[in-house]
Amino acid sequence: MSTIAPTSRTTLVRRSDRGTYDRAVVNAILDEALICHVGFVLDGQPFVLPTTHARIDERLYVHGSVGSRMLRTLRQGIPVCVTVTLLDGLVLARSAFHHSMNYRSVLILGTAREVQEEAEKRRAFCALVDHVVAGRSTQTRSASPMELKATSVLCLPIEEASAKIRTGPPIDDEEDYALAHWAGVIPLALQAEPPLRDPRLPAGIETPASVARYRRPVP
Amino acid sequence: MSTIAPTSRTTLVRRSDRGTYDRAVVNAILDEALICHVGFVLDGQPFVLPTTHARIDERLYVHGSVGSRMLRTLRQGIPVCVTVTLLDGLVLARSAFHHSMNYRSVLILGTAREVQEEAEKRRAFCALVDHVVAGRSTQTRSASPMELKATSVLCLPIEEASAKIRTGPPIDDEEDYALAHWAGVIPLALQAEPPLRDPRLPAGIETPASVARYRRPVP
Repeated sequence: MSTIAPTSRTTLVRRSDRGTYDRAVVNAILDEALICHVGFVLDGQPFVLPTTHARIDERLYVHGSVGSRMLRTLRQGIPVCVTVTLLDGLVLARSAFHHSMNYRSVLILGTAREVQEEAEKRRAFCALVDHVVAGRSTQTRSASPMELKATSVLCLPIEEASAKIRTGPPIDDEEDYALAHWAGVIPLALQAEPPLRDPRLPAGIETPASVARYRRPVP
Repeated sequence: MSTIAPTSRTTLVRRSDRGTYDRAVVNAILDEALICHVGFVLDGQPFVLPTTHARIDERLYVHGSVGSRMLRTLRQGIPVCVTVTLLDGLVLARSAFHHSMNYRSVLILGTAREVQEEAEKRRAFCALVDHVVAGRSTQTRSASPMELKATSVLCLPIEEASAKIRTGPPIDDEEDYALAHWAGVIPLALQAEPPLRDPRLPAGIETPASVARYRRPVP
C-alpha cells in the first residue's frame, strides 16, 4: 500500500479518523469524480472555479483556454489547491447538531506547471477526454495543432494530498436515541439519464455502449 | 427582475454569453445545490473545502466547529470565495476539443462575518438543516446552548456574485458535422436512493414524506 506523506497543511485538524493518505483511495476518488474545484489567489482574493480533470499516475491535469483567468494565473507557477468531492448521502440525525453528509473528498496542494512538451500535452488531452467517457479519445477527431496551441494544460503533482471520507449512519448523543425523530441516511448518487442525440446526428450513427450504458464509477 | 451589479472580479473573461447576474437565477442554483466549495488563503496557500450552506434572502450562511481550520481562519474577516456547481450533463462533441459539460455554477466573493447574535445564529442553524431536507428543523431536537457555542456560523452577503450556465448540445466546427462520430449529451442528475433507516431506529417510527420522496430541487 502506497501512502502519501502528510504535511502540516494536509494533516486533518478535526475528525482525523476520517482522513486517509492511502494513494489508492485518493486515486479512486479523483478517478470517479467528473469535476474538481480549483482554488488560486489573485490580488489577495481567492477564486474557486469548477473544471474537469484527469489523472495519469501521480499527476493531475487540468486544462483550459490560454485566455482564461484561471489558466493565465496558474501558469505563473503560484500555489494552487484542487479539491474533489463526491457526495454519497444525507445523514439525518435525531438532533439538528449531528446532521451530516456522507462524502469522499480529496484535497491536493502544490504548484502547477504548464505542460510545454507536445507529446505530454497530447497525452493529457486524451486523458481529459477519456476521464469523462472511457475510450472516447479514440472516437472523436483529435485536437489539431491550432487547438492544442489555444489550450493550456497544467500538471499538478499529487504529492501533498489527503482524502477525507464519512460513511455510515448518524451518530447521535446517547440520550437522543430515545427520541421519536426519524433518523438514517438518504443515499445520493450522480446518475446518467438516457443519452440525448445531437439534433444534427445522422440516424445511421449508433450510440456507443460506453455512452448508452454510462455510469460512474466506470465498472 | 433583480440584478447583481457585476464587478471587474465577477465579470466573465471568457464565454460571457454563459454568464448571468440575475439574482433569481443565482438564488435558484444556491438553493438546489447541497454543498458548496469554500476558498480561503492561509499563509499564502489557497485552501478549498467542501461544506453545506444555506441562503436566507441575500445572505449565504456556512457553519462548522469553532475548532476547524476553515472557521478559525474565516472568522478573522478575510477574503473568501464560495463556489457552487451543479453538473447537468456531459457534452460529447465530434471533436475532442469541443467536449464540454452542461452545468450551472455560482461564484460569490466577499468577506464573511461571524454571526454573534444568538437569534440570527439559531435562524441560520435551522436554515442549514432545512436546506438539506425541507422542514427537517422541526423534526429534530434543536441545538442546545452548548452545541450553539461549539458551532461557528459565518454570513457572507451575496453582493459580489455571478452565475455561469451551459446548456444544450455540443457545438462543433461546421466541417466536423460530416464526421461519423456519435455526438450528443449524457444528462446527469444527483438522485436519491431509498432511505436507509438508522439501525437503532424503533420499527414504529415512520419515514416522513420529505425523506421517503426526497428529490432535488425541492418541488
